Amino acid sequence: MMRNREWRLERRPEGAVSSTDLVLHDSQIGMPDRGQFLVRVTTVSIDPAMRGWMSPLRSYIPPVALGQPMRAISAGVVIASRHAEFPEGTRVTGLFGLREHALSDGLMEGVGVRRIPDDIPDEVALGTCGLAGMTAYFGLFDVGRPAPGDTLVVSAAAGSVGSAVVQLGRLAGCHVIGVASSRRREAVLGDGAHEVVDYTGGDVDQRLKALCRQGIDIYFDNVGGAVLDAALKRINTGGRVVLCGGISQYNARKPVGPANYLALIGQRATMRGFVYFDYESQFAMAEHRLWDWHRSGALRQRVDIVDGIEHALQAIARVFEGSNTGKQLLRLHGATGGES
Amino acid sequence: MMRNREWRLERRPEGAVSSTDLVLHDSQIGMPDRGQFLVRVTTVSIDPAMRGWMSPLRSYIPPVALGQPMRAISAGVVIASRHAEFPEGTRVTGLFGLREHALSDGLMEGVGVRRIPDDIPDEVALGTCGLAGMTAYFGLFDVGRPAPGDTLVVSAAAGSVGSAVVQLGRLAGCHVIGVASSRRREAVLGDGAHEVVDYTGGDVDQRLKALCRQGIDIYFDNVGGAVLDAALKRINTGGRVVLCGGISQYNARKPVGPANYLALIGQRATMRGFVYFDYESQFAMAEHRLWDWHRSGALRQRVDIVDGIEHALQAIARVFEGSNTGKQLLRLHGATGGES
Repeated sequence: MMRNREWRLERRPEGAVSSTDLVLHDSQIGMPDRGQFLVRVTTVSIDPAMRGWMSPLRSYIPPVALGQPMRAISAGVVIASRHAEFPEGTRVTGLFGLREHALSDGLMEGVGVRRIPDDIPDEVALGTCGLAGMTAYFGLFDVGRPAPGDTLVVSAAAGSVGSAVVQLGRLAGCHVIGVASSRRREAVLGDGAHEVVDYTGGDVDQRLKALCRQGIDIYFDNVGGAVLDAALKRINTGGRVVLCGGISQYNARKPVGPANYLALIGQRATMRGFVYFDYESQFAMAEHRLWDWHRSGALRQRVDIVDGIEHALQAIARVFEGSNTGKQLLRLHGATGGES
Repeated sequence: MMRNREWRLERRPEGAVSSTDLVLHDSQIGMPDRGQFLVRVTTVSIDPAMRGWMSPLRSYIPPVALGQPMRAISAGVVIASRHAEFPEGTRVTGLFGLREHALSDGLMEGVGVRRIPDDIPDEVALGTCGLAGMTAYFGLFDVGRPAPGDTLVVSAAAGSVGSAVVQLGRLAGCHVIGVASSRRREAVLGDGAHEVVDYTGGDVDQRLKALCRQGIDIYFDNVGGAVLDAALKRINTGGRVVLCGGISQYNARKPVGPANYLALIGQRATMRGFVYFDYESQFAMAEHRLWDWHRSGALRQRVDIVDGIEHALQAIARVFEGSNTGKQLLRLHGATGGES
């Protein structure tokens, strides 16, 4: 048996996640049985989706059960194995949870564990080449269907998904407008956005109007609220609203819908949600492209690392306050990732 | 020159349409030039879409200009012609406007004038085989894509579009649930709905939950508001929300969006708007099918007729109050339609 600290969901949060919702337990984990392997988690991805997984509402994946380890996507290394395909030393990523160790048979919650190549560090495997990058990839290319010359507006453009969407949108030949706070302006321009709209200054509506003279063909939404409404107002005929997230609504006790949704009729536009996990059959293909873009420098990322499993709540809070300055990660003590 | 009374848009309504917004003018119309024909309008279709056409907002078709005749789809008969394809006596339907006579060259506002067969009365040509029926046809089949066994929920199920959607949904093998006021219950069941939910009784949410044990595959929305929110809560994975209208919002000074729109993400569902006029290349095909269903008795309709051009505002008010008991029409004095 090994010591295995893990965060468990003890109560479903109302509003922001608190220390009575998620509690750190000092528990133990056994050695792998035949067909299993033991992973030491080195880095945990802290994602807005976690808020949804804590809620009791039905969704694409069942809620985390009360008393169970909190769900999270992590990277780690196999430290003991009785599974031929995942020998000791293999670097892996999967739904290992917010904890120090996990046992697996190759699946975690029905989703396949994936190998990480030696030249891809944990933070890239969990960032532009992981959930965030692949979410951007499938959302933009499958749901948004960009054509060169399309005007693409991206909210939370400085966030991990948004930053990848901005970069992929440029690769696809779009005119890219990022929505982000003014202090993130340079970062978003650095990712390749042609223009940045500061949502904190109010009047997003007027600024989008001024910048989107050709209207909006694709709006990639991570936030909901006023930005979604402003984008709907300018959506073009046949436009696509890619619903990726609605972080302005996740902690809201009384969520607000997009008042301008009827523009979808006049513009025969589509608003469609999607879920990363649905694309599992295409993960390998997308991952290879993203790795290559990472290797060539075409796809970059910023990371924001909090150290130590005991600081998980702080890392989660950063995501919901929007105070992270890149992909939010939690690095565990004694982590051994690939070279950065 | 002939006397030609016509309703003109003098002011853009705020809230409900009033007698200072639309004003009846006593004017004159000339005889057709070469390539033109003169139509005596016999029946005018009164549609919720008219409210949108009066608004200054950009839409699929330009707003009616102030001082111009109000746009409307009507049926009539050619009473003078210098156009080979539309000889005197031809029964026609088109965007002739809310007036007694119109001159045409075969197009009205860019949309083709269509012939009405002898055995199809005005009210059918303007109802289940006209805008309402074709809107139901394209919305359900192109946007909703029903499969036998799908659960289809239709709001404003007793309305002209809703009633056609219920009937077409049954033809497609769907399990059909209509949302309508309790006094329309029998009418909706008569159209073939398996169940009717009374939206006036409140708690639409609980009733939909009880009736849609398999969730909702297609929600055909004519109303928006609380019914849309309740349907989103039960939408199935891959479900389709067909945005046809939002009559609860048209007269609202402060429109409200669907608070549950984020269900589209968890359920990878699609909300898509559409516009009847986009399907012009398929009108002839759809019309022939609808005529045949009408002739065989598979597609029926209720009509609610107001008599006399001077009562147009009353007919419009009926649509927005929901007090009409079928397709709302305005019959002009001296009308000569086909046999009913």
